[in-house]
Amino acid sequence: MPYLVLCVGDRPDAPRPDSQRSEMNAEAGVKVIRIGFDELVTLLRSILERHGAPFAIADILARNCATAERDGAESHGVFRIPGYVATLESGYVTANATPVLEDASPALLRVDACNGFAVPALATARATALDKVRACGVAVVAIRDSHHFSALWIDVEPFAREGLVAATFVNGFSRIAPYSGHQRFYGTNPMALAVPRQSGDPLVFDQASSAMAYGDIRIAAREGRQVPPGTGLDRHHQPTTDPNAILDGGAILPFGGHKGSSISMMVELFAAALCGGSFSFEVNRDAYPTAETSRSGQLVLLIDPSRGAMRDYAARVDDLVAGLRGAGQSRLPGDRRYAHRRDAAQKGIPLPARTLADLQALCDGK
Amino acid sequence: MPYLVLCVGDRPDAPRPDSQRSEMNAEAGVKVIRIGFDELVTLLRSILERHGAPFAIADILARNCATAERDGAESHGVFRIPGYVATLESGYVTANATPVLEDASPALLRVDACNGFAVPALATARATALDKVRACGVAVVAIRDSHHFSALWIDVEPFAREGLVAATFVNGFSRIAPYSGHQRFYGTNPMALAVPRQSGDPLVFDQASSAMAYGDIRIAAREGRQVPPGTGLDRHHQPTTDPNAILDGGAILPFGGHKGSSISMMVELFAAALCGGSFSFEVNRDAYPTAETSRSGQLVLLIDPSRGAMRDYAARVDDLVAGLRGAGQSRLPGDRRYAHRRDAAQKGIPLPARTLADLQALCDGK
Repeated sequence: MPYLVLCVGDRPDAPRPDSQRSEMNAEAGVKVIRIGFDELVTLLRSILERHGAPFAIADILARNCATAERDGAESHGVFRIPGYVATLESGYVTANATPVLEDASPALLRVDACNGFAVPALATARATALDKVRACGVAVVAIRDSHHFSALWIDVEPFAREGLVAATFVNGFSRIAPYSGHQRFYGTNPMALAVPRQSGDPLVFDQASSAMAYGDIRIAAREGRQVPPGTGLDRHHQPTTDPNAILDGGAILPFGGHKGSSISMMVELFAAALCGGSFSFEVNRDAYPTAETSRSGQLVLLIDPSRGAMRDYAARVDDLVAGLRGAGQSRLPGDRRYAHRRDAAQKGIPLPARTLADLQALCDGK
Repeated sequence: MPYLVLCVGDRPDAPRPDSQRSEMNAEAGVKVIRIGFDELVTLLRSILERHGAPFAIADILARNCATAERDGAESHGVFRIPGYVATLESGYVTANATPVLEDASPALLRVDACNGFAVPALATARATALDKVRACGVAVVAIRDSHHFSALWIDVEPFAREGLVAATFVNGFSRIAPYSGHQRFYGTNPMALAVPRQSGDPLVFDQASSAMAYGDIRIAAREGRQVPPGTGLDRHHQPTTDPNAILDGGAILPFGGHKGSSISMMVELFAAALCGGSFSFEVNRDAYPTAETSRSGQLVLLIDPSRGAMRDYAARVDDLVAGLRGAGQSRLPGDRRYAHRRDAAQKGIPLPARTLADLQALCDGK
């Protein structure tokens, strides 16, 4: 496979090319290749560069995407690469945007992503954001005019590894009707929170504000399955369990009724209004029908729990986790991802051989 | 009625005693008395003072409670007064606690409520919190060892009237099982958000993280009604729609499945771990069986949206509200409260005559 020549992993824990293994996934009956993290990064970076992203941007996006794939978050892993390519080719995103930092106040950092991707904008802001939270105890990064197309937990987990409490909010483009409403209005509007633990990996959750992920509704439609009541409305504003009716001019509903709808509203008030970008219902991609991102915003809140008299935050998170397990919640947010990460560190990241071939074709410009 | 002598309203918009009116609530078939805001405050303050609260604390709590009643939030209005009285008499709360402010960092204010009520602690912290958010652009108030027994929107709406974005989170004592768990673990864990609007009253939401309010489950039990599927578990950890089975050793469920459970977890991570107080599952009231509050914590996040290049926050909130109404959400969070407030300003606060008599009896020490 040609990419093996291009993509030699250089991390100590990454399998070397000579350790590449193929295996059968018994359940799916497909051939699976295990590759190293850096190999995957190199492949994805090459694809993104070939489709217009400068090296530095492509590298950040490729690491982000490979991280999702490594941790088993398949919906935000290499599955997204064709979407990146389509969006880059559409011209909707400014591939070589240089984010501009604005020191709005001691604890507030504004970032104009200049229509570029959000993840490189946050990477650009990271050092200043850390300075601010170390100086003030609290900091907010308010990114506007940005395209977020990846998993949110990847943005916040590194801050928790610095001992910080980190939350983030991203709006999108209209797919979700507000509670008691009937039109597409909110984005899927995800939020994520990461906090440090004394005994191990950060506790992280990352969730959309919709009753069901858009991708899962598409999969249900493809497989001819109904979706649960409360998932969406049809084009006539009536509740439906037919995924096709939701996709064909209908709307998804928020999770949890009016309470989830308020969470989605909060995301708009943070990521759009406060950051200075478009609300999801204002995002207009008509001129870019092949683009898959949205030109919106992202807010990141950082709090340093070690300031002042109470310093045992990470140990207290352990207490909460122990309590949750005792109360019967055997699987916590992030458990599955960390299990995938450990598995990938030992054996490499599993990818269907067909997927790898498709990626290689994109890399080769086919 | 004796309290009318004690409790003359002194606000311009408060009905004078000679404008006191009684009316029949046709629906409930009960006699309703309309009284002025300050009259109600004076009555409630007298009750709290008589049961051990110092004047300044009693005044803050009375204004808070009268505000809830005025705005039609009956579950947090005078309905709560017997709970305040029982808690004060139990000795669980330190009625005359003096909150201690700790300047933990430029943007982080820690408050040790010293086992007092949370609302007076926040009132004590308010000026310093405003200084911090004006100086830094962002501020967090982290209150520990506090008893919150009132509606959260009352805490944040005044900050929005200062042009700030204000969010708050309060944990409680264990009543809610985590998603996929089976034991009482989380409190009802409410959160609230208030943001300024250019054209009118702030946009405010305030919601518990439980599928149903504890009080509503009690009402369903009393009335012999079932509750919706997904509301709770019985003592054998099985889903049930019988409110008595939930109350009798069972547990309420979070709203919105695993996503609402994560919101509840966030509240614990903010209000307990970060503030330095007890998690809901650690709160132990065994020695105070008649107390109705919990010794927990409250976090308040303040952001000044006017800092930096994007200054039109309140106008943008209006855009969002207009969009929501256009998408079919005719009633926004807070609409009902503001309608009640306007009505009360014109005609006084409506209270069942029986309720007023009961309050007067508490005031008289009967």
